Amino acid sequence: MRAVIMDAPGRIRVGEREDPKIIEPTDAVIRLTATCICGSDLWPYRGAEEADQLLMGHEYVGVVEEVGSEVRTVEPGDFVVGSFVISCGECEICRSGFPSRCVHAEFVHGGIGTQAERARIPFADGTLVATPGEPDEDLIPSLLAASDVLGTGWYAAVAAEAGPGKTVAVVGDGAVGLMGVLAAKQLGAERVIISSRHPARQALAREFGATDIIEERGDAAAERIRELTGGLGAHGTVEAVGTQEAMMQAIRSTRPGGNVGFVGVSHGVSIDGGELFFSQVQLLGGPAPVRRFLPELIRLIWDREIDPGKVFDLVLPLDEAAAGYRAMDERRATKVLLTV
Amino acid sequence: MRAVIMDAPGRIRVGEREDPKIIEPTDAVIRLTATCICGSDLWPYRGAEEADQLLMGHEYVGVVEEVGSEVRTVEPGDFVVGSFVISCGECEICRSGFPSRCVHAEFVHGGIGTQAERARIPFADGTLVATPGEPDEDLIPSLLAASDVLGTGWYAAVAAEAGPGKTVAVVGDGAVGLMGVLAAKQLGAERVIISSRHPARQALAREFGATDIIEERGDAAAERIRELTGGLGAHGTVEAVGTQEAMMQAIRSTRPGGNVGFVGVSHGVSIDGGELFFSQVQLLGGPAPVRRFLPELIRLIWDREIDPGKVFDLVLPLDEAAAGYRAMDERRATKVLLTV
Repeated sequence: MRAVIMDAPGRIRVGEREDPKIIEPTDAVIRLTATCICGSDLWPYRGAEEADQLLMGHEYVGVVEEVGSEVRTVEPGDFVVGSFVISCGECEICRSGFPSRCVHAEFVHGGIGTQAERARIPFADGTLVATPGEPDEDLIPSLLAASDVLGTGWYAAVAAEAGPGKTVAVVGDGAVGLMGVLAAKQLGAERVIISSRHPARQALAREFGATDIIEERGDAAAERIRELTGGLGAHGTVEAVGTQEAMMQAIRSTRPGGNVGFVGVSHGVSIDGGELFFSQVQLLGGPAPVRRFLPELIRLIWDREIDPGKVFDLVLPLDEAAAGYRAMDERRATKVLLTV
Repeated sequence: MRAVIMDAPGRIRVGEREDPKIIEPTDAVIRLTATCICGSDLWPYRGAEEADQLLMGHEYVGVVEEVGSEVRTVEPGDFVVGSFVISCGECEICRSGFPSRCVHAEFVHGGIGTQAERARIPFADGTLVATPGEPDEDLIPSLLAASDVLGTGWYAAVAAEAGPGKTVAVVGDGAVGLMGVLAAKQLGAERVIISSRHPARQALAREFGATDIIEERGDAAAERIRELTGGLGAHGTVEAVGTQEAMMQAIRSTRPGGNVGFVGVSHGVSIDGGELFFSQVQLLGGPAPVRRFLPELIRLIWDREIDPGKVFDLVLPLDEAAAGYRAMDERRATKVLLTV
């Protein structure tokens, strides 16, 4: 089958890989319908992580072709959405709502790779969720978004305790930050404030539910948010960048007793214990437990209550993956969908 | 009136101060029944903070002598317990459960001082809670503990989400850590594990509800706790020390999706963002919002369901405060109660 392989940093090709097969009785093999390129795929692309024959891709929707003998909840022919982390669904950690830290957790990125025609998904029952039927073509981008970028923004908004009457701030206007806006709005937030200087992203943020857009960054943004909230700060803040400045902006934008949900993968971030202590802000971050949210996200998309697929601003066939990576690397695209 | 004054580091005297008076209509003046010496009082005593004519003491129980015209919930003659932070009880932050970060918050320590015969308590309605009547003498130590050390341990256990079926780890066997054990047990935790090498504190921890005592510290303690919990870690951890080692022990002792309540005032603590991200542990700390818990804590003490007063292992009259400071400084006492 065809699959995207990163031979070395910056070197993307679509090559041949062996077709996946059922190995464990809990496996499913799916035929991909669509996949996409994640901001995190740019780390190895740019040489910030090792890249030697990497099997790329961790976001995916597709049709089940075959299942192992112990798979109960999906069957051949089902259209499915899966999480970017494999999870068993049965261990204590999965049952407590953190499948991304399942005792059997495995990142799809790296070892499995869904920028491909097919993929073997271990622990199919704990990882995949079937849609109510064959989706209309126009729903595919949104269902694909649920696999990571929407699920991650959603987790951040849940961790920020977005809800009715709340003011939620969002740090970062990339795809995940924009999904954080959508999630905060859906979860009932009264006011959603995002930092952005990018006109197209500002427009999309407004469409997703942002009520206030500020152009400040860092401490100036935190100060502006306190001004906008009677001096108190936001009830909750979504951090979707991963830098020191973004993390401190998030903590300092949030009122005492408030919550920061941080999903930007931390790069060189160090949090001063004394400042965190006296901020009295609650922190929860990490790889999003997308599988926890998938049933609800699929329902919202199926019922056309949300349209997260709008984050994709470039669609290419799998064979042109290299062009997609270039477009994201050069910031000509926010998020690239690959049709298979 | 007589009051404890720290003239300089290590120099404690009981001197004369002017009697406090009602200044604002929301004030109360109370006659202290008992007060105590806090571990945090040792910082200026040891020269780690400035000390120039400091008015000491922030934990207190006593009888209301006079109230301002706007005070509604306490009246002269009432026996009251108060928080170590003044809070209005009416601002958004107070109403959200974080009176320790009230927009009018003021630490009793420093400017007010309750190691004295009397004290003026601003925002009496938002800071004090009356007991159901005149307490029996033997309840006084426990009611006094509610003012800070119990309230702080309780907050940490709540932040650690202690509850039925949960395993809670406690880092620190000082008075606050021991109160964390008591709180976790009261909140329904199935298993409470504390790190302690001190026989008397181990015994008290068992009395307060510890089910497991481990002698390891730091990473070895975290590893031992994972061993005791099927490799997963505690559901929640109380951090009651404030050092780098203790904070990392707390984070590393906790399972993904679990909670750390940290109440040890951070000293030189720095948290690596990447480790916190991938730990997927939720952090909440800061000065305890004791006032939130006082009604419930008073009820538990009044009904003799808990006996937190056992943390006091030395009782002295106010006039002998200097001896009390020496005993705590030299670690001959865990916590000193001063009768007034």
